[in-house]
Amino acid sequence: MSHCELATRRRETTIASRVAKLLLLSALITVTTSGRLDDPLLKKAREKLAALPTTVSDLPALKDNPLTPAKVELGKMLFFDPRLSSSWTISCSSCHNLALGGVDHLETSIGHGWKKGGRNSPTVYNSVLNVAQFWDGRAKTLREQVKGPIQTAVEMNNTPGRVIETLKSMPGYVEQFARSFPGESDSITFDNLAKAIEAFEATLLTPGSRFDEYLIGNETAINEQEKRGLALFIAKDCVSCHYGPNIGGARFQKFGAVRKPPPDVMPPADKGLVTLTGIATDEYVFRVPSLRNVELTAPYFHSGAVRDLNQAVATMASVQLDAKLKDREIEDLTAFLKTLTGRIPRFEYPVLPPHTNQTPRPETGPLGDKR
Amino acid sequence: MSHCELATRRRETTIASRVAKLLLLSALITVTTSGRLDDPLLKKAREKLAALPTTVSDLPALKDNPLTPAKVELGKMLFFDPRLSSSWTISCSSCHNLALGGVDHLETSIGHGWKKGGRNSPTVYNSVLNVAQFWDGRAKTLREQVKGPIQTAVEMNNTPGRVIETLKSMPGYVEQFARSFPGESDSITFDNLAKAIEAFEATLLTPGSRFDEYLIGNETAINEQEKRGLALFIAKDCVSCHYGPNIGGARFQKFGAVRKPPPDVMPPADKGLVTLTGIATDEYVFRVPSLRNVELTAPYFHSGAVRDLNQAVATMASVQLDAKLKDREIEDLTAFLKTLTGRIPRFEYPVLPPHTNQTPRPETGPLGDKR
Repeated sequence: MSHCELATRRRETTIASRVAKLLLLSALITVTTSGRLDDPLLKKAREKLAALPTTVSDLPALKDNPLTPAKVELGKMLFFDPRLSSSWTISCSSCHNLALGGVDHLETSIGHGWKKGGRNSPTVYNSVLNVAQFWDGRAKTLREQVKGPIQTAVEMNNTPGRVIETLKSMPGYVEQFARSFPGESDSITFDNLAKAIEAFEATLLTPGSRFDEYLIGNETAINEQEKRGLALFIAKDCVSCHYGPNIGGARFQKFGAVRKPPPDVMPPADKGLVTLTGIATDEYVFRVPSLRNVELTAPYFHSGAVRDLNQAVATMASVQLDAKLKDREIEDLTAFLKTLTGRIPRFEYPVLPPHTNQTPRPETGPLGDKR
Repeated sequence: MSHCELATRRRETTIASRVAKLLLLSALITVTTSGRLDDPLLKKAREKLAALPTTVSDLPALKDNPLTPAKVELGKMLFFDPRLSSSWTISCSSCHNLALGGVDHLETSIGHGWKKGGRNSPTVYNSVLNVAQFWDGRAKTLREQVKGPIQTAVEMNNTPGRVIETLKSMPGYVEQFARSFPGESDSITFDNLAKAIEAFEATLLTPGSRFDEYLIGNETAINEQEKRGLALFIAKDCVSCHYGPNIGGARFQKFGAVRKPPPDVMPPADKGLVTLTGIATDEYVFRVPSLRNVELTAPYFHSGAVRDLNQAVATMASVQLDAKLKDREIEDLTAFLKTLTGRIPRFEYPVLPPHTNQTPRPETGPLGDKR
């Protein structure tokens, strides 16, 4: 995404967020005060803002990347294939572990050469719903995002050319790319690799959370404490950033909007969006993370500095909303957040095509002049 | 396994191998010369020596570890759980990748701190059929083997105490261990962890290879070239080590029995079994590897120094059998070896229990005084 696009997108999402916030506030405050789930406003909120879709094939981001079974299967293979890394030891799955909430639970990931990355690995679950990818939103789409870690020296440490050479050396991949991109004479490209992984990731939705159940009319799906947490979530204005079907992921916001977080939580050197846009007000601005499955995705923040969800809630209240929460309020809010845990999709572990004598060999050191 | 046990086992397997070799030789030579698959001797060979079982629940090694669905599921969870390593980045699956023939395709594996292990990671497929585990056979069973890599500093770098503390901190594991070891008051033990992983690994069989099809009577399952390769496999005496249902894995043998392999292929410092038994004739003795799925498990030998299967075949002929093979013979033998590729079992990727605030945190440095 260009700097100008990023700035525009940020302005758009800020305006959209204000509208969305008003709608959601009016809808949900009615619900939680009236307790009536058949309230027409709630229905509007469900449609527009909060319901997690069970399919995303109609998302604008996917309109030129239709989800076909062959392509989703190819994307799954690539997602799990460590041979996309130069060392053959790191796959997408290493840092976005689908068995562990789509994350690696490290402050920042360990990549090639046991080097540490700069920011906490975000979950890949429901990520297709985010307005942009990476903590600073520098990729507009998942297919743009995918290309980053493969090439980053402290992550998978590979090059597009070497990846394509690798894939072309394996007849199993040649066939699966041809099936996934019919009619293309040269279907194994870095763009198509990214499209296939995007297609697989677009299937990684976690519907059926208790909060979704509640929104579709099951009043007992969340308990009294969780309802108090929801009311606080609205009253304290958490919802001003965490809204939409992904309960977040829909806009950008300054971390430390009212009070600077401690330096371990927000390392001063990582200035966020401003590095990309050059706009002073983008200093320490990041894309708001989704709160879906938040109980599964510790540690929190782009620094990964906070592992305890209660502490993360207290920190956010303090630095974003100037609110000092009581212990009981924190517990209620955390209880509500845990109702956002959805059904993790189940799938068959892939069997990957064997490499051949033409496949570039694993390189566990720096790629050197091959880059 | 104690040193004495190892020495005894080696003697036992050597005697057994001689008997087995005679039986297999007489059976298979008859087949490949007569071409008749209904030969009574072949039937005997099928029963006693070569057929891959589709279940192993009657193996003596498993008699005190019955395979129950709960235990196999638990074993699968543990096999894929990187939180068995101190860094939370390395699981059994990292080096024994079930999507890649049960190996990592590196010469020697990369573990904690990007350190390299001493020997090539053997495949976990069909490994329950081996007479002993590890290249030097120092573990009698898989359950004994499992405990090694978890504790090795250059592999998963953990301690039994820390692993148990980790598992006990997660209610999902507490339940799954209780289901897997009913009637035990304290079911989360290092022994039970090893039993569960052994149970899962015992299901990792790859039946249905074309050679198995041939043995059960489908004469067209392997082609003429592959039949020539099989005849050579017997005539050149490869079968004297690679026999039994796992086509290997059943005995120990000196690497370089007739001629010392080059030092990159057999590093002089790694003296094999003698290090454990102290018996001079065990110098450079290793457990013979299985040849099942050998086309999927490059690179070859305990050093992982040879990646090309043709070259591995030529090396073995030279250093073990004093045979200089013609190119065509090597190609025929390799063609036969590729008929040993079986059906890789398919299963659902697990979803792992979330950690809690009580779970010991990931440690990406040395464990230090916690060890």
